[in-house]
Amino acid sequence: MPANESFSDVKHARIIGAGLIGTSIGLALRARGVVVSFEDLSPANAELASALTGGFTGDSAEPELVIVATPISSIGTLVLGALKRHPESIVIDIGGLKSKVLNEVTTLSASDHRYVSVHPMAGREISGPGAARADLFEGRAWIVTASPTSSEKAIEIALALGEILGSTTYRLGPAEHDATIGLVSHLPQMVSSLLGSVLASRTPEELLLAGQGLRDTTRLAASDSEFWSELLLANADINIELLNAYAIQLSDLVKALSEKNEGALVEILDSGRTGQKRIPGKHGARVRDYTYLPVVIKDAPGQLAALFDECAHAGVNVEDLSIEHSPGQSTGLITLALSESDAEKLQIHLKNLGWSAHQPRK
Amino acid sequence: MPANESFSDVKHARIIGAGLIGTSIGLALRARGVVVSFEDLSPANAELASALTGGFTGDSAEPELVIVATPISSIGTLVLGALKRHPESIVIDIGGLKSKVLNEVTTLSASDHRYVSVHPMAGREISGPGAARADLFEGRAWIVTASPTSSEKAIEIALALGEILGSTTYRLGPAEHDATIGLVSHLPQMVSSLLGSVLASRTPEELLLAGQGLRDTTRLAASDSEFWSELLLANADINIELLNAYAIQLSDLVKALSEKNEGALVEILDSGRTGQKRIPGKHGARVRDYTYLPVVIKDAPGQLAALFDECAHAGVNVEDLSIEHSPGQSTGLITLALSESDAEKLQIHLKNLGWSAHQPRK
Repeated sequence: MPANESFSDVKHARIIGAGLIGTSIGLALRARGVVVSFEDLSPANAELASALTGGFTGDSAEPELVIVATPISSIGTLVLGALKRHPESIVIDIGGLKSKVLNEVTTLSASDHRYVSVHPMAGREISGPGAARADLFEGRAWIVTASPTSSEKAIEIALALGEILGSTTYRLGPAEHDATIGLVSHLPQMVSSLLGSVLASRTPEELLLAGQGLRDTTRLAASDSEFWSELLLANADINIELLNAYAIQLSDLVKALSEKNEGALVEILDSGRTGQKRIPGKHGARVRDYTYLPVVIKDAPGQLAALFDECAHAGVNVEDLSIEHSPGQSTGLITLALSESDAEKLQIHLKNLGWSAHQPRK
Repeated sequence: MPANESFSDVKHARIIGAGLIGTSIGLALRARGVVVSFEDLSPANAELASALTGGFTGDSAEPELVIVATPISSIGTLVLGALKRHPESIVIDIGGLKSKVLNEVTTLSASDHRYVSVHPMAGREISGPGAARADLFEGRAWIVTASPTSSEKAIEIALALGEILGSTTYRLGPAEHDATIGLVSHLPQMVSSLLGSVLASRTPEELLLAGQGLRDTTRLAASDSEFWSELLLANADINIELLNAYAIQLSDLVKALSEKNEGALVEILDSGRTGQKRIPGKHGARVRDYTYLPVVIKDAPGQLAALFDECAHAGVNVEDLSIEHSPGQSTGLITLALSESDAEKLQIHLKNLGWSAHQPRK
């Protein structure tokens, strides 16, 4: 059955947990005309999510679908509560680990046929409803893990939701899911956090010369500690095994350096390249094809406003931008992301007015 | 002395090594009217670099400046050769490590006052003259390492070259340089390669669900093994020390997971976050303690300009910002980075005018 049809009965989705994931799902559902409402322990989060999605908070019409998108420790309880409170609704949880939650629900609830568990391989290092994006799941993997008792209808709704969000859908059993996730998600998180922890004893001055390599490798280390400690612990056995494998490689590397053994060193680095190449391409993510226009501005109040005034005058739409400051300097570099034709138009417009707008590049 | 003046004597620069770095420097110098010529073990590379820059190959007029931009193992010999062959020229090498090369040159050449070493923190995963870009060094760090005997004129030329290329220039001693580079560049490379090597024994199917986190963390692992083994070995003592520090953190993490010690686990992850936050903003910007103000705007030309007009009216300074679009929606989320007091002031100002400005957060 096409996703559209399976999902056509869903007029109202209740989202429990107005964080990054819940709000992002809300944005995408709302764009499709589904009414969304939010619950959250933090009323401020629920209100921001509602404002962003044009949804609402508080009780109202019965939802056809309940989505539980909360930290992993509360999922079991909230799913059981939702199955009871909404006796006709399909209930989906969005959680990063499967074995434990599925066990809990299928042991405690006779309504477990209305329940399916989902793990979207999407996230950001920032959290909260303010970070939500309707396209968060586009091109990402959407893993559906059914319990042995899940109804076909519930499974179809869970798969259809992933398709609506633009994800590539997969079905995995709970144990297989948790082993895979350890490898592709928990291990890089741990490796990045450990690198961050080595930096923690250093001063910002010692890190002044950090480049993109260090930034990329430590990006995950910025993630929320409570969120991750729960996940890592819930998958502890698999994660210990992965760390042990990593530690063996590490001790081989120290040995190669100590012995000045260039052959062994090249072999380790080659093995790293081989592993990196094993990672498949993106899940058919829609590539954003921006052109980047670098503009050097005075690093002073009012300059950004003046720049955006000119963008408006030129009739161009700024898709994204970054600001880079040079310390001790009176200039900043703004890089505007635009369509190719807008970038060309804006560069000419700005240069004619005396702005320092450089060659746009892909 | 301004960069322009220091560099005004340089009419002809000889570039030894027509790879990514040498050719990129050539492009930028040529754009400034400096005559450039190339030497390379590969005549094809030298010819391509000449064609790209409008330079030439082969001997000719005496250069005022010689730039050695070759793999690290050949730099010492080539610098010594250049000092001899061009008895009036300033000689600069562009290399990733300093102590060894400087030692070699200052021990063997009486002309070492004409020599200065430079390390630009710029590069790409691809190499060769075809990958060169005149703007490769713009906004990047340009580290100048003088020997104790380097003349003021040579140092000035090396600094001026960085400024001409649009870099932010720094001066570091050789030992300080190598320790810093170990921390911010060699360590992330090694951590990434080790992660890659753990993946090398897996099948692509097992990695099918890899997301952006694994891709970012292993990006460096794709780097050239020969190039990196030379660098890592030349800095072996510092790198072994860094790996040992990493291994201690790793064994603490295994212990916390084995003991199901959530407190210890959170502490390790928190330490990773602390370290990650120590990394300054791009290009060595000072670390900033921003407050973030989320504002929902209509995703249309003119709205950003209107928002920044209000920022100017409120007298607040926007330090940074991000734009997040929800495709298919008529709203966008702008997150403004401000000082805490500016964020509070601006939220009130915007709300009074009917803008959808939400609770500022740290």
